[in-house]
Amino acid sequence: MSDTNIRRRTRGGGGAARRAERTAISVETARFIERNIPNYEILTPEALDIIEANAETVLAEIGVNFVNNPAALDRWREAGAEVDGERVRIPRGLARKLCATAPAQFTQHARNPERNVEIGGKNLVLAPVYGPPFVRDAEGGRRYATMEDFNKFVKLGYMSKWLHHSGGTVCEPTDVPVNKRHLDMLLAHMTLSDKPFMGSVTDPSRAQDSVEMCEILFGKEFVQENTVMTSLINVNSPLTFDDVMMGAMEVYAKNNQACILSPFIVGGAMAPVSVVGTLTQVLAEVLAGIAYNQLVRPGAPVIFGAFVTSIDMNSGAPTFGTPEASQILYGAGQLARRLGLPFRSGGGLCASKLPDAQAAYETAHTLNAALLGGVNFMLHSCGWLEGGLVSSFEKFVMDADQLGVLHKMAAGVSADENAQAMGAIAEVGPGGHYLGCAHTQANFKSAFWRSEVFDYKPFETWDEEGARDTQALASRRVAYLLANYQQPTLDPEIKAALEAYVAEKKASMPDAFM
Amino acid sequence: MSDTNIRRRTRGGGGAARRAERTAISVETARFIERNIPNYEILTPEALDIIEANAETVLAEIGVNFVNNPAALDRWREAGAEVDGERVRIPRGLARKLCATAPAQFTQHARNPERNVEIGGKNLVLAPVYGPPFVRDAEGGRRYATMEDFNKFVKLGYMSKWLHHSGGTVCEPTDVPVNKRHLDMLLAHMTLSDKPFMGSVTDPSRAQDSVEMCEILFGKEFVQENTVMTSLINVNSPLTFDDVMMGAMEVYAKNNQACILSPFIVGGAMAPVSVVGTLTQVLAEVLAGIAYNQLVRPGAPVIFGAFVTSIDMNSGAPTFGTPEASQILYGAGQLARRLGLPFRSGGGLCASKLPDAQAAYETAHTLNAALLGGVNFMLHSCGWLEGGLVSSFEKFVMDADQLGVLHKMAAGVSADENAQAMGAIAEVGPGGHYLGCAHTQANFKSAFWRSEVFDYKPFETWDEEGARDTQALASRRVAYLLANYQQPTLDPEIKAALEAYVAEKKASMPDAFM
Repeated sequence: MSDTNIRRRTRGGGGAARRAERTAISVETARFIERNIPNYEILTPEALDIIEANAETVLAEIGVNFVNNPAALDRWREAGAEVDGERVRIPRGLARKLCATAPAQFTQHARNPERNVEIGGKNLVLAPVYGPPFVRDAEGGRRYATMEDFNKFVKLGYMSKWLHHSGGTVCEPTDVPVNKRHLDMLLAHMTLSDKPFMGSVTDPSRAQDSVEMCEILFGKEFVQENTVMTSLINVNSPLTFDDVMMGAMEVYAKNNQACILSPFIVGGAMAPVSVVGTLTQVLAEVLAGIAYNQLVRPGAPVIFGAFVTSIDMNSGAPTFGTPEASQILYGAGQLARRLGLPFRSGGGLCASKLPDAQAAYETAHTLNAALLGGVNFMLHSCGWLEGGLVSSFEKFVMDADQLGVLHKMAAGVSADENAQAMGAIAEVGPGGHYLGCAHTQANFKSAFWRSEVFDYKPFETWDEEGARDTQALASRRVAYLLANYQQPTLDPEIKAALEAYVAEKKASMPDAFM
Repeated sequence: MSDTNIRRRTRGGGGAARRAERTAISVETARFIERNIPNYEILTPEALDIIEANAETVLAEIGVNFVNNPAALDRWREAGAEVDGERVRIPRGLARKLCATAPAQFTQHARNPERNVEIGGKNLVLAPVYGPPFVRDAEGGRRYATMEDFNKFVKLGYMSKWLHHSGGTVCEPTDVPVNKRHLDMLLAHMTLSDKPFMGSVTDPSRAQDSVEMCEILFGKEFVQENTVMTSLINVNSPLTFDDVMMGAMEVYAKNNQACILSPFIVGGAMAPVSVVGTLTQVLAEVLAGIAYNQLVRPGAPVIFGAFVTSIDMNSGAPTFGTPEASQILYGAGQLARRLGLPFRSGGGLCASKLPDAQAAYETAHTLNAALLGGVNFMLHSCGWLEGGLVSSFEKFVMDADQLGVLHKMAAGVSADENAQAMGAIAEVGPGGHYLGCAHTQANFKSAFWRSEVFDYKPFETWDEEGARDTQALASRRVAYLLANYQQPTLDPEIKAALEAYVAEKKASMPDAFM
C-alpha cells in the first residue's frame, strides 16, 4: 500500500497537480490567511511579566496532576520535576525550557497539496465547529447528530471558499458506536474533502487508527516525515492531564503529528473569575502540557491552545462573545507569541440557541478578537451554536461567509499608486460621482468584499420575495451548496484500502456506546 | 428667563445635585467610556504620510466648492485661499494650520451635570441612531415614523444604561411639518431625557432655534460659555459644502456649539473605490470643513467625522459592517489623532432589513472597529437598521445592550493582586472547582458582563417559554423599558417656557412639507 502512495507522491507535479487543477475549477478555496496587519495587544509588558512569573509559581509550588499515567510521571521525574503521587511540581523555568524545542510554525499537509496550511507566524487557518452531539436546521429543529449529518457538514466545509480546514468531529455521529465512529469520521474527511483534517483523541487506540489511516492516504514514510493531522488535546482544567487525552497526545507526538494543547475553561468554574488569574492558569497548563509533549518527542509540532469562556453567574450557563473572553483571547495570544508557539483560540462561539442576532453578535465579537489577537488556528470558526451543544447547518454557511471578512481585513491596506486614486479624485472633482470613472471601472470587482448569504436587495424586491431573514437565506445556501457538491477525486486504490481498513477495524470490535 | 436659569445653575450643588440623585436612583446611566486600552492602528506611518500629502494636493490643486455662500468665499479669500467662482483652492498647509485652533477635547454639558460628556482624548461617547424616515417593530413592521415614535425612542435612550447621549433625529417625525419638527424633537430631548443632545441642521434658522431653546434650558450666558449641543454637519461629498449645512454650522460655531464635520461617503459612488483614495478625500474634506469652522470662530469645538460605507457593486445598495468600512474607520482614526481632533465614526451600522443575524454581524463588526479604532463620538450606536432608512425598536435595545460590551472591553485588564488570584489557584488546586472558592464569591458580581436581552437559560426552559429569538426577547425589553420609564424632573418654569417658545414659533410659520 505504502508503495502506491509514495508513487502517487513522488509522481509529484503530474497527477497531483492535474487533480488539484480539476478540483480548483469546480470548488474554489482561499489560501490560508497571511496577516498583513498588526496584532492587537491589550496587556502591558508588566502584566505579562506578572502572569509568566505567577504561572511558574503555580507549576513549581502547586503543580499539576498527570492521572493514571505512570510513564508520564517517569518522564517528568527524569526531566527534573518533583513527582509526588500523581502530582508533578515543575521547577521554575523547566517547562518553558522544554517548550523551546517545539517549532514556531509548521506545515499541515492535505492530500491536495494546494490545500496545505501553514500554522504559526502571521498565518491564520480556519477550521469548522468541533464536538456537538446535536444538529439544528430551520426545517428539522434540534436533534441528535447522525453520520448523515456529519457527511453533510464535511461537504459544506469542502464547498466553503473561506474555510481552509475540514476539521474533526464536526458533529458527533451518535448513530455510530462510540468506539467505531472515529473510523467513519476520518473516512468522510479523507474521501469527501481534500482539505486538511484532525485525528481522533477519544482513546489512544483511536489516535493510532487515525495515524494508520493517514498512512494509507498519504503513504507511511510521508506521514513520518510530515504533519498530516492537527488534533485537539483538551486539558482537564484546573491543572489536570488525564490519561486518555495524554495517551492520544503521546501517539500523535511519537508520529510527529500536531497537537493543540488546550485548557478548556469556563471562567469562574475551572479557573478564577478574573482575566489575569485565568491567563495564569492557562499559561501554567499550556507550559506543562507542551513541555510533556516535547518530552515524548522533542520537536513535535504543537499549538498553544486557549478555549476560555465565562459563566453566567445567574444560571451557571457558559456564555460566549463576552468582553472577558475577548480580553483573555488577546492576552493568551500575547503569551503564546512570547513563547514562540502557534496559537489556537476563538471561533464563531455563541451561547444562543438559534442562528439569530444573539448568535451573530457573540460570534462576530469572537471572530474579531481572534483575527486581531493573532490566532493561528481557529477551530469552531463556523457552525457552532448553543454553547457548542449544536452544529447548525444555517450558522455554518452564515459564519463561513463571514470568514471572508477576516480574509479581507487581514490583507491590510495598500497605499500604492492605484490605491491612492489621485487621478480619479481629479477626474471626478467636487460634486461629481465615481460610479462611471475609469478607476472605479478598473477596480470595482475586487474592491469590496461581498457576502454570498446576506440580503442587499431593494426593500420592495426583498419584501416581495418573502421578507426572508438571515436564517432563511442561509437555508437556501445550505441546499445550494449540497446540491452543487462535487466530490474531489481520489485514487480508487487508496479509497478501497481506506474502506477495507475501516471495515476490518469495525469487524474486530463489539459495539460500544460509552 | 435667563435670570431664572442662571439661578438654577448658580444654585449649584443644592437643587441640581438633589435632582440628579433622585434621577440616578431610578435610572442608572454609565459614565462615558474612558479607554484604558490601546488604539488599533492599521496604517503604517508611511501610508499616513502619503494620505496627508495627497489630501493637501487635493485641496491646493482640485479644491472644494462652497455653494451659494458668498460669505464663506470671502472668509476663504481673506484667509489666503484662491477663490475661483465657488471653487476654493487651499494652499498646502493652510487648512491644517487653521484646524490647529480647534480644541482636542471638550465638554458637552447636559442639563443633569452627571450626564455631561467629555468628547475627545481617550473618551468614547455613545449616541443613538440619527435620521431614519421609517421605524420598525416586530408587531407593526415597517412604517413612516411619527412624533409618537420619536418620543418613544427618546424614552428608550433615557432608560438605556450604556447610552450617554440622547442624540438628535432618532427618527424623522414625518407627521410634523418639516419646518416645525425640529422644535418638537428638541422639546422631547429636553423634557423626556436629561442626557446631552444634538441640534437641528436642516436650516440655519432651525440651528438658531436650537440655540434659543438651549438658552431657555441652560441660561443664555451658560450657553455662550459652554457647549450644550453637538450637531451633525454632513459634507456633500465629493468636496462640496452646501449652504444649508454650512449655514447651520456657522450658527453653531458663532455660538460656541460643537459640530461634527462628516464626509458622508458611499465608497465607489462619492469617493474612490480604494481605502486610501477614500481616506485622502475624507481628510481633504474634513480639513476644509473644520478650517472653515475655525475661520468662523477660532476655538469652536468640532469633531473629525467619517461616515463611510461601501457599495454593493451588484445592486448599487450601500453595505455596512464590511472589512473596507472597518479599514477606513481605523485609518480615519489615525488621521484624526495626528490632527489632534476628536473623532466621530462607527455605530451599529447594518444593511439588513430585519434585526436578524445579518444585522448583528454587521453591527458587531462596526462596534468593534469603532471601539478599537479610537472613536470619540459614536452616532448610530443603537437602533440603526436597513442602511439607515429605519429606526428599529428591537434593534435599539439589542444594540444598547451590546454597548455594555464596549464599556467592559474599554476598561482594560487589571493585574492587581486580587486579579492575579494566586490564592484561589492554590486553594482550588488540580481537579478542583472555583464556584465556591472565596475569591469567586468576593468577585463574581462584577467579574463578567451580562446581557439584559440575550437568552442564557437551559434549553428546556427556553423551549417551554416559546423558543424565542433575539427579536422576540428584545420586543419584551422595549415594552418593559417603556412601561418603567420615569420622566426626569425639570423646573416647571423652564418647561413652560420651552413649550411657549415652541408654540409661538410654530404659530409664526405656515406648515411646510419640503
